[in-house]
Amino acid sequence: MPIIALTTDFGLQDAYVAAMKAVILGVNPNATIVDVCHSIEPQNIAQAAFLLSTVYAYFPKDTIHVVVVDPEVGSQRRPIILKTPEAYFVAPDNGVLSYVIRHGASPERKYPEAELTTLPPGLVAVEITNPKFWHQPVSATFHGRDIFAPVAAHLSLGVPLQEFGQVITSVNALPIPQPQLGKGGQLVGHVLHIDRFGNVVTDIHEEDLPPGRFHLQMAGRRIDSLSSSYASAEADQLLALIGSSGHLEVALRNGSAAALLGVKIGDEVSIRKR
Amino acid sequence: MPIIALTTDFGLQDAYVAAMKAVILGVNPNATIVDVCHSIEPQNIAQAAFLLSTVYAYFPKDTIHVVVVDPEVGSQRRPIILKTPEAYFVAPDNGVLSYVIRHGASPERKYPEAELTTLPPGLVAVEITNPKFWHQPVSATFHGRDIFAPVAAHLSLGVPLQEFGQVITSVNALPIPQPQLGKGGQLVGHVLHIDRFGNVVTDIHEEDLPPGRFHLQMAGRRIDSLSSSYASAEADQLLALIGSSGHLEVALRNGSAAALLGVKIGDEVSIRKR
Amino acid sequence: MPIIALTTDFGLQDAYVAAMKAVILGVNPNATIVDVCHSIEPQNIAQAAFLLSTVYAYFPKDTIHVVVVDPEVGSQRRPIILKTPEAYFVAPDNGVLSYVIRHGASPERKYPEAELTTLPPGLVAVEITNPKFWHQPVSATFHGRDIFAPVAAHLSLGVPLQEFGQVITSVNALPIPQPQLGKGGQLVGHVLHIDRFGNVVTDIHEEDLPPGRFHLQMAGRRIDSLSSSYASAEADQLLALIGSSGHLEVALRNGSAAALLGVKIGDEVSIRKR
Repeated sequence: MPIIALTTDFGLQDAYVAAMKAVILGVNPNATIVDVCHSIEPQNIAQAAFLLSTVYAYFPKDTIHVVVVDPEVGSQRRPIILKTPEAYFVAPDNGVLSYVIRHGASPERKYPEAELTTLPPGLVAVEITNPKFWHQPVSATFHGRDIFAPVAAHLSLGVPLQEFGQVITSVNALPIPQPQLGKGGQLVGHVLHIDRFGNVVTDIHEEDLPPGRFHLQMAGRRIDSLSSSYASAEADQLLALIGSSGHLEVALRNGSAAALLGVKIGDEVSIRKR
Repeated sequence: MPIIALTTDFGLQDAYVAAMKAVILGVNPNATIVDVCHSIEPQNIAQAAFLLSTVYAYFPKDTIHVVVVDPEVGSQRRPIILKTPEAYFVAPDNGVLSYVIRHGASPERKYPEAELTTLPPGLVAVEITNPKFWHQPVSATFHGRDIFAPVAAHLSLGVPLQEFGQVITSVNALPIPQPQLGKGGQLVGHVLHIDRFGNVVTDIHEEDLPPGRFHLQMAGRRIDSLSSSYASAEADQLLALIGSSGHLEVALRNGSAAALLGVKIGDEVSIRKR
Repeated sequence: MPIIALTTDFGLQDAYVAAMKAVILGVNPNATIVDVCHSIEPQNIAQAAFLLSTVYAYFPKDTIHVVVVDPEVGSQRRPIILKTPEAYFVAPDNGVLSYVIRHGASPERKYPEAELTTLPPGLVAVEITNPKFWHQPVSATFHGRDIFAPVAAHLSLGVPLQEFGQVITSVNALPIPQPQLGKGGQLVGHVLHIDRFGNVVTDIHEEDLPPGRFHLQMAGRRIDSLSSSYASAEADQLLALIGSSGHLEVALRNGSAAALLGVKIGDEVSIRKR
C-alpha cells in the first residue's frame, strides 16, 4: 500500500487539497494519503523546502511526496519527479526540493549557492511531459489537481519513471541557509523557522556547534548553556537546545520565545566559545 | 473501498469531526474518509454549497458526500440522502446541495430562483427517517455524529437507499448566484468566494464571457485582458483569468487581490466588450 | 485494521503530526490513523483531557488513542499506556487522561481532587520503558514521534502490554471541574470549553440539573428555560441546552454566545430553581 504524502500552500479553508485527494483516489483507490502540511505561507518555497526536510526521512521507503508550492503554475517552469534512494518527490522545479537535492546523496551539508544544480549521484529526475497521466482538462492554475496528483497516483501504481517524461540531469535548488564564521570568530546563524509553540529554529545544526561551552546571543539576549529539554528551564526562562530536527533552537518554558524576542525568519543568532 | 467525503463548518479546534469519523469507522471499518473542508464559516450554507460544487466531480463515482452545515439541527428540517448518477450526498435539506441539485442532471446553468425545488430527472432523494441506521442516543445538537455519519457509513456498506426512508420529489435549493445583463449592456457578476491566496472568484463562468476582447471592472480597478496563468502578470500586478473551477477570477501576482481591492462576497464585477 | 487516533497540541502549521504518522505507518502500514484534534492550546493539558473525553467513547472498541500534550517532554515524567475495557491510551503521565481515569471504570462522576491517583478496577497502566519499540535516536524534545507513535503502532500490531514496560498502579490525574452547591442553594458551575461556534460548554452535566424549572445566570444575563435545539431560539437570542457531550451549554442562535457574553474558561454559571 503505497503512501502519498502532501505538502502544499493550499491551506484548509478551500477544497483544493480535497480535489488532489479525489484525483489520487480516482487513479489508485488503495493509496494511503498523508497530509504533511498545507499551511505553508502562500508562495513560500523556502519554507516548504525546510518543513519537508524535517519530515521526509521518517516516512517508509518509497513514499511518494507531492509538494505543491507553485507560484509559476501555468508558466514554463517544469513539473518534475525526483527519485532518491529513499523516496519519490513530485513537484514543480522551483527549489521546493532544495534540501532533498543538496542533502540527498551526500553526507556533506555545505554546498555553494546555485540556481540550476547538477544532480548528485544517486538521484534521478524526470521532467513530466507525458499528458497520458494527467487529469484532463488541465487547468492553467491548478497543476496540483491536474498534473501532480494524478502523476503521483500513477507512480504509486508502479508506472516506471521514464514513462512520465525525459530524464534531466539538473534541477533548480535554492541555497540552503547555513551559519558563517563571523569576524570575531563567532558562528553567525539565522532564524530558519518559528514553530507553533514559538520555538525559534535556527540554521545552526548540531554538528556546527563548537566543542565545549559557549554563549548564544539572539535579539540582545544571552543564553549560557545548552539545555537537554524544554522542561529543564524554569518557568518563563529562555533556553537553547537541539530540537527534533537536529537544529539549534531557542525556546521559552511554557511560552513563545519568538514572541518574547520579537524575532523573525532571517534574524541573526551568534555562538561564541566561552 | 467506498469513499466518504466530509464537508462541515465544525472547524478543527474541537473534536466534532473526529466524532463523525469515529462513528463511521464503527459502522464500516473499511471506509476511506476524505476531508473536503471543515472551515466553512459557521452556518454559511451558501459557502458550503459553492465549495462542494468545485470539488465533487473530481471524486470517484459513487463517493458518499456528507455535508453538515446545519443551523436548524434538531428542528423540523429534514435530513436527506440525494443520489445523482455520479455520487451520493447525505445532508440536511437546507440548500447545502443547491449546486448539485441545480446542475446535476442538466447541462443548463440558468435556473429561476426557488426555495422548494422539484428534482430534475436523474436525481433521487430520500428523507432519512429510519432510526435503525442512527447512532443512539441522538443528540438534538449533533446530527452530524448521530444521523449523517452513521447513515453514510451504512450506505457505504450497500444498504439500499429506500431503507433509510421515503422517496421525496422536491428538496430545498438556494438560487445560484449568476451574472446579469446590466442596463449599459455590460455583464454584471458578483464575488462568490475568496480563497486562501486572496484570489477573488466570481459567479461569471467561462461560458458567460462575451466573445472577443473585453474590460473587467472591480472595486474601481480595470483589467484589460484575460491572462492564462498567475505567472503571466508582473509582480504586484492585478490579473484576471479562468480559475480551476471554471469561474472568472481576479488575482494579484504573489499577493492577495482581495486585500488590495478590499472586496467581499457579493461585491460587483462588470465585464464590457471592447 | 486497528485505529490509531491522535490528539496533540502540535497544530497544523508544522510537520510534527506528519512525522508521527510517518513513524506509525513505518511500523504498521495497515494502521488507520484518525486525527482527533491538533489545535489544543500549547501545553494545555486540561483542554486536551476534556476534548478527549467528549469523543473517545464514539470510537470502535480497542482504538489506540495517542495523546501528546507534553510540556515536560525529556524530563522524568513517565510515558504510559493505559488500557481500559474499551480502548488504549498512549500518553505522558501528566493528567491528559484525567477524564478517562476518573470516569473510566465507574459510573460515578464525583471524585476528590488528587494528583497521584490509584487506578480504579478495570484499568491497567504500564510505564513505557522498553526502548525496543522506540524510534531511534530518541529526541529529547519530540517523544510524540520517537516514543508515543511507534509504541502505538507496535500496540496496534498486537504486541502485549507488558512488553512495553512494568505495570504501575497509580497515575497522575487532574481534578475534574464540577459544579458546587453555593451558599444560597444555587448550583455553581464553570465554563469548561468554548467551541468553534462560540457555544459555551459548562461543567454542569445533564444529571446535575435540578428537577423542574430553573433560571440560569451567566455574565449577568439570565436564561429562563432549557431549549431543545439551537434552532428553537429566535435569531440573536441566547439559549441554554444540553449539548452533544451531555453538558449544559449556553449558545446564541446563529452567533457566538462566548463573544456576546465575553466569558472565558473558568467563569461562573449558576442555576437556581424557580
